[in-house]
Amino acid sequence: MKSIIASIIFLFSIVFVNAQNGHELWLRPVKANPVNVICKQNSPTLSIAKQELLDRWQGDNNASVTLTIKKDKALKKDGFRLGKNSVQANTDAGILYGVYELLRRQQTSEPINNEIFNPSYEVRILDHWDNLNGTVERGYAGNSIFWRKNDPFTVTNTDKKLWQEYARANASIGINASVLDNVNASPLILSADYLNRTKEIANVLRPYGIKVYLAVNFASPSTLGKLNTADPLDKEVIEWWKEKVKEIYSLIPDFGGFLVKASSEGQPGPQNYGRSHADGANMLADALKPYGGIVMWRAFVYSSNNEDRAKQAYDEFMPLDGKFRDNVIIQVKNGPIDFQPREPFSPLFGAMKKTSVMPEFQITMEYLGHANYLVFLSTMWEECLKSDTYQQGKGSTVARCTDGSIYPQKYTAIAGVSNVGLDTNWNGHQFNQANWYAFGRLAWNNTLNSEQIADEWIKLTFYNDSSQKSGDKNYTADWNKNFLAPVKKMMMESREAAVNFMTPLGLHHIMSANGHYGPGPWWAPKGMRPEWTPPYYHHAGADGIGFDRTTKGSDAVSQYHEPLASQFNNVATCPEKYLLWFHHLPWDYKMKNGRTLWDDLCYHYEEGVNQVREFQKVWDKAGPYVDSTRFMEVQRKLRIQCVNAILWKDACTLYFQQFSKMPIPYELERPVNNLDEMIYNDRGDGRSH
Amino acid sequence: MKSIIASIIFLFSIVFVNAQNGHELWLRPVKANPVNVICKQNSPTLSIAKQELLDRWQGDNNASVTLTIKKDKALKKDGFRLGKNSVQANTDAGILYGVYELLRRQQTSEPINNEIFNPSYEVRILDHWDNLNGTVERGYAGNSIFWRKNDPFTVTNTDKKLWQEYARANASIGINASVLDNVNASPLILSADYLNRTKEIANVLRPYGIKVYLAVNFASPSTLGKLNTADPLDKEVIEWWKEKVKEIYSLIPDFGGFLVKASSEGQPGPQNYGRSHADGANMLADALKPYGGIVMWRAFVYSSNNEDRAKQAYDEFMPLDGKFRDNVIIQVKNGPIDFQPREPFSPLFGAMKKTSVMPEFQITMEYLGHANYLVFLSTMWEECLKSDTYQQGKGSTVARCTDGSIYPQKYTAIAGVSNVGLDTNWNGHQFNQANWYAFGRLAWNNTLNSEQIADEWIKLTFYNDSSQKSGDKNYTADWNKNFLAPVKKMMMESREAAVNFMTPLGLHHIMSANGHYGPGPWWAPKGMRPEWTPPYYHHAGADGIGFDRTTKGSDAVSQYHEPLASQFNNVATCPEKYLLWFHHLPWDYKMKNGRTLWDDLCYHYEEGVNQVREFQKVWDKAGPYVDSTRFMEVQRKLRIQCVNAILWKDACTLYFQQFSKMPIPYELERPVNNLDEMIYNDRGDGRSH
Repeated sequence: MKSIIASIIFLFSIVFVNAQNGHELWLRPVKANPVNVICKQNSPTLSIAKQELLDRWQGDNNASVTLTIKKDKALKKDGFRLGKNSVQANTDAGILYGVYELLRRQQTSEPINNEIFNPSYEVRILDHWDNLNGTVERGYAGNSIFWRKNDPFTVTNTDKKLWQEYARANASIGINASVLDNVNASPLILSADYLNRTKEIANVLRPYGIKVYLAVNFASPSTLGKLNTADPLDKEVIEWWKEKVKEIYSLIPDFGGFLVKASSEGQPGPQNYGRSHADGANMLADALKPYGGIVMWRAFVYSSNNEDRAKQAYDEFMPLDGKFRDNVIIQVKNGPIDFQPREPFSPLFGAMKKTSVMPEFQITMEYLGHANYLVFLSTMWEECLKSDTYQQGKGSTVARCTDGSIYPQKYTAIAGVSNVGLDTNWNGHQFNQANWYAFGRLAWNNTLNSEQIADEWIKLTFYNDSSQKSGDKNYTADWNKNFLAPVKKMMMESREAAVNFMTPLGLHHIMSANGHYGPGPWWAPKGMRPEWTPPYYHHAGADGIGFDRTTKGSDAVSQYHEPLASQFNNVATCPEKYLLWFHHLPWDYKMKNGRTLWDDLCYHYEEGVNQVREFQKVWDKAGPYVDSTRFMEVQRKLRIQCVNAILWKDACTLYFQQFSKMPIPYELERPVNNLDEMIYNDRGDGRSH
Repeated sequence: MKSIIASIIFLFSIVFVNAQNGHELWLRPVKANPVNVICKQNSPTLSIAKQELLDRWQGDNNASVTLTIKKDKALKKDGFRLGKNSVQANTDAGILYGVYELLRRQQTSEPINNEIFNPSYEVRILDHWDNLNGTVERGYAGNSIFWRKNDPFTVTNTDKKLWQEYARANASIGINASVLDNVNASPLILSADYLNRTKEIANVLRPYGIKVYLAVNFASPSTLGKLNTADPLDKEVIEWWKEKVKEIYSLIPDFGGFLVKASSEGQPGPQNYGRSHADGANMLADALKPYGGIVMWRAFVYSSNNEDRAKQAYDEFMPLDGKFRDNVIIQVKNGPIDFQPREPFSPLFGAMKKTSVMPEFQITMEYLGHANYLVFLSTMWEECLKSDTYQQGKGSTVARCTDGSIYPQKYTAIAGVSNVGLDTNWNGHQFNQANWYAFGRLAWNNTLNSEQIADEWIKLTFYNDSSQKSGDKNYTADWNKNFLAPVKKMMMESREAAVNFMTPLGLHHIMSANGHYGPGPWWAPKGMRPEWTPPYYHHAGADGIGFDRTTKGSDAVSQYHEPLASQFNNVATCPEKYLLWFHHLPWDYKMKNGRTLWDDLCYHYEEGVNQVREFQKVWDKAGPYVDSTRFMEVQRKLRIQCVNAILWKDACTLYFQQFSKMPIPYELERPVNNLDEMIYNDRGDGRSH
């Protein structure tokens, strides 16, 4: 048997280029041309910048490149001016970012004009949901790179090397901050041992311009500190946090601040003591203020009351608008529910006019097949960032409402829940690297379009550098046509494909309860909190399907600014991609294409499956241009994705058919899975089998 | 969860007609018109015939039907003359067959002219591979209806009722014989207790015109009888068998005879004592002769020598032609290997000119998905029966070489390995009933075509009798168009679909070693008898694929009569459906359609999958015409078949791709299974996991 498997691998490897495992990400080694780097200043960060130029220069042979730090009012924060042979910035980090931009443009053959590059957000942060025992919540790429279960406080050279590689990857795409631990935080993170390890990590990340932050447990004063309370208005509590912050800054002078999930999904918070979110956030903000630290306070809250869960964050936070300190930023997920394959933007964006707000995106694919599906998330984030809130007239996009363009925020920030783990390829799926990359690029420039980001990433990640260096124009033309173009197209379609086979037409939260992986539209055990069950969201019944959030329903539409409120409220004008998010409609409702809602739902599921099948063809054809390891990894994942897409299609169409009582259109492929077996195999119900 | 499943069933049942479970086979109750039956004679068989007329008459109200027994030289054996209101025959059984034919024609609206119906074969026999412990070898429809593990010698009323239903079903399609036990026979079948139970079974079957036969173990004299030998020339052995036969006939005066698998796959036989198959068969034939019994001696033999397995039965038996007693019939499987999805006919047919030969077909689907696939086997058997052997000039079909038309055999016979078990629907898959039905119909008339058989079976099995009785012509027209026609088309294509997704272009014996169910082209453990491993048959290598049986190879072609030998030998004239059976060809061999062999192979696999998907559509559309139980059973089995078809396609294309080193044509659907995982999951290698 072994020999057969070996020969399969052999078969493929002979036709593929250099062996790769993906660990080098978008920073694959290139043969550098000789270059002369001129820089008057010196610092660890500048040394890195210089070395990158020496190692990777693709410009003219023996060119002289100048790196200049000088005050320039046109440059914001770590922005930079880029010339063909020059980088100028206000800060060391600005120089480093300029150097990475220069090298990227050389490698992707993009033009370099004299141009200014300013970051859209000041804080561009990765949230690691890493537990102190080394596991990663919603992580699908191995254990934590920061924490480990055994011998947890020794820092090895291997650790440092990995942290450095991680820091370099982040710096190369402009990420300048990391929350090192899970938002469902352990109080222990604030103990001396863990703070010492945090200091070690910070020391490795610092030269790359990256500040560390910690997620903290609001009850820490009582659980770690042994006080009787964690009431944010209690003097001893206030004092405890002040002392703790002081201790942290004595170890990490450039510590970034806290991320807090409080009074949310069982986490302790100010509401335990009858206080508001503002009371809690402000108390921490006051402790951090003297050191320049900030508080990122999450708006991800909902109770098990009768109110539409989609409305609750808005209802809870809007009355507090203007009551937060200027070093508090409210962290708002892109949509009102929870990182679904598609949601409309959260109505909090733009609505909080006197409070700093930051978007939270999820890079790890909790609801999108974990590390098994190929889904380029950039298009999803772009859709959110470019959504117009109309809060200050037309053009009040989510991007402009959060990056300081419209509201004068003292701090601006954007967070991505990281997909990084100990896997050799960092992210579980080779193509998930593109999501890490895209998050960094969009955080730096929230007007970038996803196609450009995909183009860059593919070129950096897959181009055969030996051919590139040989300057073989025929190879490049061939590669552009037969690899770059189809792979880019696949990436650009991949998110819509996932929506189609998982949650088309505005469906949401119909996944399996455990693991959030497969389909689970049926899951609703007796006594379960209704808003944790899919039927709460799809409302499928004999009369139709969808969540009525119109003015006649939960009235969530009214949380949006006009003209959106009316547009969403009117079934005739509501975009069909959000149709069942806002409307409950009969199965025979006539869609714009003339189909019934039921038929169109079935067509979307079928389309999703066929899109994945098309991706398989694209990738198989791409085989000759990819090294065997990465080719086969992706090929295998696409096979899983295809089988899963069929499972989603079968589960949802057969489950909903119970209510529609209409046939799946006979021209469509028939189910191959049985509903009762899918329900039985769904571990969502807590049965052990 | 239960309520969901219940509601699914509810959903379907509301649109379906009367509940059915398939136990009534093609004999569903109909509302009879009043009829007057006139018959001068009396016998248990005639009583059954009369009762069937009273219970099921669909002709004119108050018609008089005459049943007449009288000598008529135009009628052979149990043949009959059929009129609109009359049946005439030489025997009681002939009357019974005539009555069933009359009722079938009424129910299917076929015309009834004055016509003679003579059976093609005298003995139309089902071989039950039923073990005495109640299991059934290669049985996929539950345990044996004859034998049981617990309390094995008590005959209950439930037993008798079941045996009677079984006998009636057989009689209704002309089957007149049953081998009650497995060809891999236990000596215990000849012990007093089992012979007594056999007698009880015979007593139930007798009124339906069915004789019982037993498969016997050749070593019985030494294992059951305690002799030192089972040498067929040994006097004590001869005497032992004579006494045993005498004992049997004292219990069962119309006992049919023995079926023997000897010196085959480890079974004892005359070769253990240096004797020939003729020596063994003749000894048993001599013992049976006084009572009119016969011996069916199987030609399914092969040794582990260097000779092509496909040639060995011919090589072994041809030298014995003319050496067998006239009450011995050599039982030959349809093809030279073993009930594969497609084989050319066995060269023994027509070649043995001085020996009685009978075809052996397999109704149970050992190599065709067990009871999971919808495969109408009638087309496969028709293909064999109508194959021209050319042994006595053009028109020497297998049918005519075995039914007495060409060679004067004292006995003619045809055997089908039964698919009957204790399952409510008898055969595991509702559509497997059609194969039982088709075997009976072809055994009676080997010139019938499969389309007619399918037409009859569908009408008898699925027509909604209440509508029929109401004489609603619109319903009938609708049913004919939307149920009968597409379902018949599906049945007619079903065998070719299975060939396409399992063993296209003459491939054979590439199934998983254990269970003969899934694909296993890779299976070849060290030291295994080569002819038990798939690579022995497909010979896939860098140079191509297929078994060279030409004159330059194993020369199996020369076992066929001209012009077949030359036609098969020449790759240009060899039918492509047998291409890789007879030829080893390079991967880029050009097929008649212009494709390379490799591409065409991939296309056939794809076509097979798509055919099954089409069957799913046909069946789903047929839903409104079928009761819910049978509809859902078949729907679920088709889903399994579809998933399996994809598995076969992926396994074979990915396995063979290792040798072809050519891409699966990119316009075809990509694999969703991984080769190494399929190999790992294949239990064929004996590893336990």
